[in-house]
Amino acid sequence: MNLESNVEKPSEGEDRTWRQQAYDIVFEADTPAGVLFDVVLLAAIFLSVLVVMLESVESIRLQYGGLLVGAEWFFTILFTLEYGLRIACAPRPLRYVFSFYGVVDLLAILPTYLIALPITSIADTQRLTTIRALRLLRAFRIFKLAHMLTEANALRNAIWAARAKVAVFLSFVVISVVIVGSAMHLIEGGRLDENGQAMPSGFDSIPESMYWAVVTMTTVGYGDVSPVTAVGKALAACMMLLGYCMIIVPTGIVSAEFAQAAQKNKILRVCEHCMAEGHDKDARYCKYCGTML
Amino acid sequence: MNLESNVEKPSEGEDRTWRQQAYDIVFEADTPAGVLFDVVLLAAIFLSVLVVMLESVESIRLQYGGLLVGAEWFFTILFTLEYGLRIACAPRPLRYVFSFYGVVDLLAILPTYLIALPITSIADTQRLTTIRALRLLRAFRIFKLAHMLTEANALRNAIWAARAKVAVFLSFVVISVVIVGSAMHLIEGGRLDENGQAMPSGFDSIPESMYWAVVTMTTVGYGDVSPVTAVGKALAACMMLLGYCMIIVPTGIVSAEFAQAAQKNKILRVCEHCMAEGHDKDARYCKYCGTML
Amino acid sequence: MNLESNVEKPSEGEDRTWRQQAYDIVFEADTPAGVLFDVVLLAAIFLSVLVVMLESVESIRLQYGGLLVGAEWFFTILFTLEYGLRIACAPRPLRYVFSFYGVVDLLAILPTYLIALPITSIADTQRLTTIRALRLLRAFRIFKLAHMLTEANALRNAIWAARAKVAVFLSFVVISVVIVGSAMHLIEGGRLDENGQAMPSGFDSIPESMYWAVVTMTTVGYGDVSPVTAVGKALAACMMLLGYCMIIVPTGIVSAEFAQAAQKNKILRVCEHCMAEGHDKDARYCKYCGTML
Amino acid sequence: MNLESNVEKPSEGEDRTWRQQAYDIVFEADTPAGVLFDVVLLAAIFLSVLVVMLESVESIRLQYGGLLVGAEWFFTILFTLEYGLRIACAPRPLRYVFSFYGVVDLLAILPTYLIALPITSIADTQRLTTIRALRLLRAFRIFKLAHMLTEANALRNAIWAARAKVAVFLSFVVISVVIVGSAMHLIEGGRLDENGQAMPSGFDSIPESMYWAVVTMTTVGYGDVSPVTAVGKALAACMMLLGYCMIIVPTGIVSAEFAQAAQKNKILRVCEHCMAEGHDKDARYCKYCGTML
Repeated sequence: MNLESNVEKPSEGEDRTWRQQAYDIVFEADTPAGVLFDVVLLAAIFLSVLVVMLESVESIRLQYGGLLVGAEWFFTILFTLEYGLRIACAPRPLRYVFSFYGVVDLLAILPTYLIALPITSIADTQRLTTIRALRLLRAFRIFKLAHMLTEANALRNAIWAARAKVAVFLSFVVISVVIVGSAMHLIEGGRLDENGQAMPSGFDSIPESMYWAVVTMTTVGYGDVSPVTAVGKALAACMMLLGYCMIIVPTGIVSAEFAQAAQKNKILRVCEHCMAEGHDKDARYCKYCGTML
Repeated sequence: MNLESNVEKPSEGEDRTWRQQAYDIVFEADTPAGVLFDVVLLAAIFLSVLVVMLESVESIRLQYGGLLVGAEWFFTILFTLEYGLRIACAPRPLRYVFSFYGVVDLLAILPTYLIALPITSIADTQRLTTIRALRLLRAFRIFKLAHMLTEANALRNAIWAARAKVAVFLSFVVISVVIVGSAMHLIEGGRLDENGQAMPSGFDSIPESMYWAVVTMTTVGYGDVSPVTAVGKALAACMMLLGYCMIIVPTGIVSAEFAQAAQKNKILRVCEHCMAEGHDKDARYCKYCGTML
Repeated sequence: MNLESNVEKPSEGEDRTWRQQAYDIVFEADTPAGVLFDVVLLAAIFLSVLVVMLESVESIRLQYGGLLVGAEWFFTILFTLEYGLRIACAPRPLRYVFSFYGVVDLLAILPTYLIALPITSIADTQRLTTIRALRLLRAFRIFKLAHMLTEANALRNAIWAARAKVAVFLSFVVISVVIVGSAMHLIEGGRLDENGQAMPSGFDSIPESMYWAVVTMTTVGYGDVSPVTAVGKALAACMMLLGYCMIIVPTGIVSAEFAQAAQKNKILRVCEHCMAEGHDKDARYCKYCGTML
Repeated sequence: MNLESNVEKPSEGEDRTWRQQAYDIVFEADTPAGVLFDVVLLAAIFLSVLVVMLESVESIRLQYGGLLVGAEWFFTILFTLEYGLRIACAPRPLRYVFSFYGVVDLLAILPTYLIALPITSIADTQRLTTIRALRLLRAFRIFKLAHMLTEANALRNAIWAARAKVAVFLSFVVISVVIVGSAMHLIEGGRLDENGQAMPSGFDSIPESMYWAVVTMTTVGYGDVSPVTAVGKALAACMMLLGYCMIIVPTGIVSAEFAQAAQKNKILRVCEHCMAEGHDKDARYCKYCGTML
């Protein structure tokens, strides 16, 4: 998922048309007007998602239904105007429309219009009502704002640097889940009750057992499915200890990646005068010879 | 929450009045008398909270009710005297009264007096009884004591340094919770039983689904709500793996922050004679040239 | 479990027979043909395990039974041919047959043939059907592929370096589980109901209590067994806090091991010209004097 | 808990009496005979605890009761002989008797003798039977064995170094548990059913609510108690996120402690010839100038 705007920026010339100015406000966040636009947009997104949430609670919908529908239309028209503006000022409109945010922006306004169509059935209406919550995906634009951007990038880099190790770890988890799931299906599945009838145990197929294995290994432990035979309990206990211990490994990996990233930032700051390194990120003078960094 | 006393210290002069002396004992913890006062106060706080706890257990209240009420009045009068003393010796009494600890100190004594009023209803009495447990907030004064203060500050600094990364992490968690909650409402909600009646599933509104999403993602997993459809189980399994893996990221961040803080303490200790660094916190001589640090 | 091929490589000569060429393709992954063979094999393994999974779901078996049996025979014959090829081209066939992968490869094909025998009972058939899922163990060959190999080795080394500390940790966990399990059996077991009958509590024997202790200490918490007496709940709460805090220790150990491993890689890279160290893994020139590393 | 033998070692002279020789075998683990004694003892402890476990399972006790009683007496007599030998060869027998291991060693043999007394009631017999499991505490002697000792000490030192930070952390957890527990008692407790009767909710007293708070904060989540009101669920969700995030802090602390401990070991090894540091623990020569370390 590419969180950055993958729309080309129009070339900066002297005779900046309204389209270029609009582009800077709507797509970028480095001018005051651009930041203001993004903050207002984020507030509108959060409010509109709150409306969707409240509408899903039956008692609230029955009481304040009209108000919520009104608010919904207000936000939909607002987002429609914004969508139109984005298409109008993007240098390559089609590229925006088919980008990640382009699709999400369309999904954010479409359901309300579809519900208003007379051909939409009631079941579809309910589904479309909920789909509007996906407009929260637009909130990922929050990471475009200044301070957030640096930190989000630092996080992404550390996770990216650890990706190969995490892939090995996840392969191991998935293989464990399938094998323990199959073993539990063998041990706990197919039990019969007193009348010789098959008894549902939650381990009646390998996919069901795998669901149990994931619930157990991640230490969630709903308890909707749990082993009853002695052998099953023993195997489950082993799997819990495995899950409890296994979380250690990726934690260690990512910790080391972060520590290294932090170290690198520090070591890379070298005083040009005495060549001493290890200066803090916020240092302004070399701490050994006093030269300005 | 500012845990340090934000009351101005009276200027140290030669003719120290009783108010200044009382201030040093009541508000500060750097004289033996001040430490003793704080230790006795903490003991009284813990005992009074224990009394509140015991009073909430019906069988104990029925048997030892009189004794507990007596103890309660003893602590309330003690805390009232202390509150009066604090107002009397604070250089700016109003500033203390409206500070965090001033409000908490008042809340610690008010309920007992309100309960004694004849106009308080029984329902209010029960509520006020419980509110007294909030006096445990006063126990945060424990971090004022010498050894605790350094460590509490070190912890706070490391958490503070990681705040931006943790904010990005929490944004991601909240957005995930809303989106997965909405998706589960779509998948699991609105099921009908054999008679065509709506069946309560725990996914009947987006806020309910979000509650489930938090229970699952934090690996608490009560099991009071759990998915029953195959698609719901598959999505739940993915969310568990996400929650299981996501805890890694902030752990890594904070580990790196702590490691860096520890490193910084060490690197900053430089021998003035040979300029060698890396001396331990408890070192008294340079380990390379023997100069006293 | 030795994940690397423990079969001797035939000596590389000029007149490479077909057996030597086949060996390079089947057992190794450093030629394009060898990588292709492994990728195709992994795809076949995943597909065949998917077939086993689908077959275990009753509704799918009833509808697509014939198709699944056909797919099953296709994969079995494919794996049989592969097994024969491995025996034919291994320099020491017996050594391969009794190696970890040799046994797993045989287990992957045997069940289908056994089911086809007329003497196999229906109960055995179901068991054999599930055992086929063990062929996923063959998927561990994925770690032979280039990029995975380095990372898997790095992970293994860090875990191996921490093995003694982890052993001490696990000893402590197991001893805690036995002691808390016995204590809970003493506290919660043997309760009687109103008629003086023994009431099953899930703490009726020490092994059952130990199962509960593992479920609690690993923070899985099914809730199928939970304490009901006040003393039992207090002890359980202490154990939860212990389990919650204890995971910290091995995480810290492994984090430090990983950080040290990363550090070692970096420190060991020394520029031969200026003797400066600390070069990153991907650096090509010394960052101090510019000499090629 | 002092895990090391706190019994004074007899002075090493030339005319070593049998008591001194016995002491070296029974209390120490640095001679081959001493190691052998400890390994045999550990095996006997594990076997005797296994007997206790099996005896607590009713079906096994009914079938193999006689055999288990016989094994129990065998181990009890063996441990009695060992206890006598320890008293006989300890330089200060009383000091051993009242040390941690002295008490545990006595507890390991006493129950069997008490059960044999005619005055012991059946209820006491069951209790004494279970208490024998405490002899597993003797297994902590495992940490006296060579390789384990170093690692156990390293672990203890890192945990000890982090004790002040962990104390601050635990204070914060306990205060949170009390405050959230009281708040949930206020919100969820005292609900009435349709007939105006008090409904048990698991939040009926502050201690019960605190049990729930511990179960939730440690992410165990049995589900035997869970909130039902909207406000209660919201507060519970906040507490889960707090518990999920809070585990990060001590993990970070301990990680940093371990990393620092590992670093210290490395930095402290300095080559006496060129003063270069950073040599690995297993290095025998300086990696810069080749001088033997």
